[in-house]
Amino acid sequence: MAENTITERDNVFFEAGIKLGALYHQFTGSPVSLKTVESLETAIAQSISVQPCVEQITVSIDRDMVRSKLNDEFGYCELEGRMLNVQIDVKYGSVRAHVSMEFNKELDYPLMKIDKVY
Amino acid sequence: MAENTITERDNVFFEAGIKLGALYHQFTGSPVSLKTVESLETAIAQSISVQPCVEQITVSIDRDMVRSKLNDEFGYCELEGRMLNVQIDVKYGSVRAHVSMEFNKELDYPLMKIDKVY
Amino acid sequence: MAENTITERDNVFFEAGIKLGALYHQFTGSPVSLKTVESLETAIAQSISVQPCVEQITVSIDRDMVRSKLNDEFGYCELEGRMLNVQIDVKYGSVRAHVSMEFNKELDYPLMKIDKVY
Amino acid sequence: MAENTITERDNVFFEAGIKLGALYHQFTGSPVSLKTVESLETAIAQSISVQPCVEQITVSIDRDMVRSKLNDEFGYCELEGRMLNVQIDVKYGSVRAHVSMEFNKELDYPLMKIDKVY
Repeated sequence: MAENTITERDNVFFEAGIKLGALYHQFTGSPVSLKTVESLETAIAQSISVQPCVEQITVSIDRDMVRSKLNDEFGYCELEGRMLNVQIDVKYGSVRAHVSMEFNKELDYPLMKIDKVY
Repeated sequence: MAENTITERDNVFFEAGIKLGALYHQFTGSPVSLKTVESLETAIAQSISVQPCVEQITVSIDRDMVRSKLNDEFGYCELEGRMLNVQIDVKYGSVRAHVSMEFNKELDYPLMKIDKVY
Repeated sequence: MAENTITERDNVFFEAGIKLGALYHQFTGSPVSLKTVESLETAIAQSISVQPCVEQITVSIDRDMVRSKLNDEFGYCELEGRMLNVQIDVKYGSVRAHVSMEFNKELDYPLMKIDKVY
Repeated sequence: MAENTITERDNVFFEAGIKLGALYHQFTGSPVSLKTVESLETAIAQSISVQPCVEQITVSIDRDMVRSKLNDEFGYCELEGRMLNVQIDVKYGSVRAHVSMEFNKELDYPLMKIDKVY
């Protein structure tokens, strides 16, 4: 196959990236506290699950980070990218991939990465 | 009291407006389907409830509008302001107010308004 | 006038709050660097200026905070609420108000407040 | 090379998807009018340009769609995904790709797609 033909594999990673970028920029900034974190996790996972090519998604928000960011005066904080651990299985045609987002301490960055194709 | 002194009443409406503006621009655009609409309602209400001055909040998303906007090919749509019915009770000092957002057909606009002060 | 009648003054503060809440949750999270900060300031101010009741708005993003938050590896950061200094004049009927958002160090919080009514 | 080894080509499409998903969910919903549309285009393009792997980006907002969506009473509308035409060149290692987002009338959908790899 010619190298410049776009494949299902190309598309599965393109779609996977779209989901992570969308999730991040739709939901970070949401007010959150330890009492409301679970409903936010559920809603984020369900919201992204309706998009094309998503087979499975789990969203986990780091309670320790939320706790450490709670404002002393007001008792809540905002959802930050670094608080998110997201695991997504994406399918395009006959190709599946697993991608994730997780805070990378060395880079001080919420790193999105490809974990596997199968 | 001098007219240019800022009162608790002034602040209760200022805080109420902040909540509605925040809710609208944080969550509209979220992917949603009939299966996931309830988790989104819950998360929006809980998220805004942690902000200062919020006594009570209910969020309802219009299922008929969601249904009519579902994309034929992909089976989901985005949360739009016009789909939202939001009722908030806000308190500042000793003053309470009820404000709301609801789609106004005549204006073709998701209208935010003050309902009462008490 | 009965205390429970909603006045222009009530509405001017409600509208002012809506603008600040909207601005905050629409634009925080935007990728930004020292080279792009000016275009973001301009777009935020112009975007909010088209909403009802806005007479004037200025938006300033703190360059020192942006600089201190730039990721070492990637050279950019995200717009945070604490980086924003926003000044808005709002008018409702015959009443005008000036409101603002500015980072409050003591509270460690991007504080929105009413500055004056006139 | 084993099929399950992740390549630069895989990553270029993953990164490209991230940019389009981020752009869409960060900026749709922004208030806009014909007078302010240009500053919003500029800010969106500059904002996404600072993210990793972006070589070039152009953002164009459809003036006719904005005009047709302006609210009669208030004279502005919100940026919708369907108004956006986005062209991005992304580079990962030695691989480049061109991706785009454009409204697809048949699907009634703001379609993101891979245009070429080079």
